[in-house]
Amino acid sequence: MKDLTLIEGIEISDEKEDLICYSYDASYAKGSLPELIAWPKSTEEIVKIVKWATNKGLKILPRGAGTGMAGGVIPINSKSIIISLEKMREVLEINQKNFTSIVEPGVINGELQKELMIHELFYPPDPASLDYCTIGGNVATNAGGPRAVKYGVTRNYCLGCEVVLSNGAVLTLGGKTLKRVTGYELKELFIGSEGTLGIISKVILRVLPQPEEVITLLISFDSIDSAGEAVPKIIGSGIVPRTLEFLDSSCLSLIEKNYELGLPTQVEALLLVELDGEITSIKRDGEKIVNIARKLKGETQIATDYYARENLWKARRSISPCILKMQDKEKINIDIVVPLDSLSKTFIKLNQLSNESNIPIISFGHAGDGNIHVNILVEKGNEEEKTRGFELVKKIFEFVVSLGGAISGEHGIGITKKPYINIQLEKKQIELMQAIKRIFDPKGFMNPGKIF
Amino acid sequence: MKDLTLIEGIEISDEKEDLICYSYDASYAKGSLPELIAWPKSTEEIVKIVKWATNKGLKILPRGAGTGMAGGVIPINSKSIIISLEKMREVLEINQKNFTSIVEPGVINGELQKELMIHELFYPPDPASLDYCTIGGNVATNAGGPRAVKYGVTRNYCLGCEVVLSNGAVLTLGGKTLKRVTGYELKELFIGSEGTLGIISKVILRVLPQPEEVITLLISFDSIDSAGEAVPKIIGSGIVPRTLEFLDSSCLSLIEKNYELGLPTQVEALLLVELDGEITSIKRDGEKIVNIARKLKGETQIATDYYARENLWKARRSISPCILKMQDKEKINIDIVVPLDSLSKTFIKLNQLSNESNIPIISFGHAGDGNIHVNILVEKGNEEEKTRGFELVKKIFEFVVSLGGAISGEHGIGITKKPYINIQLEKKQIELMQAIKRIFDPKGFMNPGKIF
Repeated sequence: MKDLTLIEGIEISDEKEDLICYSYDASYAKGSLPELIAWPKSTEEIVKIVKWATNKGLKILPRGAGTGMAGGVIPINSKSIIISLEKMREVLEINQKNFTSIVEPGVINGELQKELMIHELFYPPDPASLDYCTIGGNVATNAGGPRAVKYGVTRNYCLGCEVVLSNGAVLTLGGKTLKRVTGYELKELFIGSEGTLGIISKVILRVLPQPEEVITLLISFDSIDSAGEAVPKIIGSGIVPRTLEFLDSSCLSLIEKNYELGLPTQVEALLLVELDGEITSIKRDGEKIVNIARKLKGETQIATDYYARENLWKARRSISPCILKMQDKEKINIDIVVPLDSLSKTFIKLNQLSNESNIPIISFGHAGDGNIHVNILVEKGNEEEKTRGFELVKKIFEFVVSLGGAISGEHGIGITKKPYINIQLEKKQIELMQAIKRIFDPKGFMNPGKIF
Repeated sequence: MKDLTLIEGIEISDEKEDLICYSYDASYAKGSLPELIAWPKSTEEIVKIVKWATNKGLKILPRGAGTGMAGGVIPINSKSIIISLEKMREVLEINQKNFTSIVEPGVINGELQKELMIHELFYPPDPASLDYCTIGGNVATNAGGPRAVKYGVTRNYCLGCEVVLSNGAVLTLGGKTLKRVTGYELKELFIGSEGTLGIISKVILRVLPQPEEVITLLISFDSIDSAGEAVPKIIGSGIVPRTLEFLDSSCLSLIEKNYELGLPTQVEALLLVELDGEITSIKRDGEKIVNIARKLKGETQIATDYYARENLWKARRSISPCILKMQDKEKINIDIVVPLDSLSKTFIKLNQLSNESNIPIISFGHAGDGNIHVNILVEKGNEEEKTRGFELVKKIFEFVVSLGGAISGEHGIGITKKPYINIQLEKKQIELMQAIKRIFDPKGFMNPGKIF
């Protein structure tokens, strides 16, 4: 490709094997091959690429680590360039006095967590893909994670960002303070915008002092109903756990089959509860939870040391990859979120839909904040079943929205949920969003065909 | 006014005494008299008024309790109608299982706090005007308060809202869940929009379980430098106080002159620190703070019961009204916010500017989050001094922005800070905001002349 000299000095590729690798994410979506991939190393290089690409009429897709679950970084047009931010991975500042950190967009979430730990600091958002996913991608999807129960999502920690628009303009939005009221907070639009407004080239994060202690409780229940009952009882008791994860028996067998971690597979459901804070206070809360569980015939194991805890979390985080490994099944995964008081209603509905359709549904996720990962497992190659699987998706989304919930809690809309966006948003809201998109990106270069 | 029959059934007034009262807020700004005031009692009535007003070519100013500090609700055009939301003050839902509350916009912040207390729930944002200010106004200005140090600002608690646009359309934005990624989060644009995009007609708030215990520490220092040194020491020790307020001797004398609360007036500065949480843990943190203070020759008094604490807060909240009462002075008040590590630098700069100009500056505020209320006191009627006062404002704003801070932490821009918005925002950002304004309000009916 002759034109490559025009963006000389910047690492690029048009090798087929690269193009294929970068045309996927972690969802079931499939797209076109892009024309080119570029790996900028600075904001200036991003600007250079953007100007070159728009001049050539190429659509622009910013990409973090490609761990997205909604097809948000998949090209739908072969006249596309993928701008991979994965080589902009420097932690530029860790400020212990101001409780902020400034990072490049390609910094891996888990690596930042480890670096902050050295400074006795703590960045709460912890998507299951934290060992791979990037902070830029986290901002673009407003990523959550188990700890959202207590600490909220990426939006609550992104104090500011630098973005590059499709006309090459660089904007610095927000800043280094927790408070700030200076006109419309444009930064908030970029959080969760899935690369459709511009490219996030720098992020200012709020960080917290590291909690003094953490304990993890693994509670097993013989009945799924008892586990469901335990969730509101724990939260209603005034305890704010930092995680409250729900796994049913199908998840447990799946993990054991793949990893043999010694998890109880004879039980119907498992809660993974984590408490953090001052040691006497979390011990007391831990005892309260053990008692709540006992009354519902739940048995509690406690893991206090780092490695025991990490093992449990490895199990939890492996569920999604494990499902992908099921050779005869194709998964349609969604991440609905419902108000907490509708949680058991939702589990009952999912069971009912699975039974009616005779399609297995594996559910797990963040019971503490109502965010459930629903995996609809259809037979590979069975198109009729797949169609019925997508009909289930529609039914689930309609149910969720009727409860005041949302069709995505932390994955975003991308292309996989785009056909259902009308269930969530009225036409006039979508039109307002499209008008906002046109302000930032009048010619529609940025990640076209996503969200709406 | 004949046309009034057109919005029959809705409480309105064009009496001069009403028009005068509603042409002020709590700032030093002065505006025009509006033509009319309307007090809707429902979203439907808001829509009716909006349609009637736009048809008449009247500008529309939504207004909460008028406690704003930036002139945000002051009419600058006599062809205006004020829509006062103060009679829409019902708490529609308190949901203990989902930790949410749905309120009408005119609900008073402090009244909601009290009602939630009965349900053992807690709404953190606590502007000094909490006994008067409304939740709708809080959302429109992204209000903060002392507890922001630990709990953040209104934005962190507004999960959703209903808004009425100038074309009469009603939008329901966000929802009842903490997580949600479904396109651009339009709700976030309304938070801090100061009535320029539409009228907030309903708010869904996140609420928290009530903290188990609260203790309040009043620490007095003989030297302002020691007080300044104590702030980063306390925060750096890993303690997250729920408030960390700073008052200098001029504030203290002012309060004592007006209220005689028995505050120590011989000291140079005072910190008001509040801790909440599990009792053993906050006692331990309290002791840590006492020791930090002692090393800096600070003396600590502890208030544990509700009334003793409320007394201290009454004192703190009375500062602004006390300054207004100073008969020979006019106050120019601003609420800058700086990164925490620039706090002492900022106090030194303010002192220096006051000395150079020979104009007294009283500063107080939220040392824990870098948000300082700066009151520049100029002689009443002395126009030359007033001009110099506004020159100081400009210098302070330039300094604050150079530190990565903001010209308003929690009051907003309104009209009083509008002349300085260019210091904060680049031209291209302002243009983007103006374009967003045109999407929501193409004909410019909503609160014109504010922010930019």
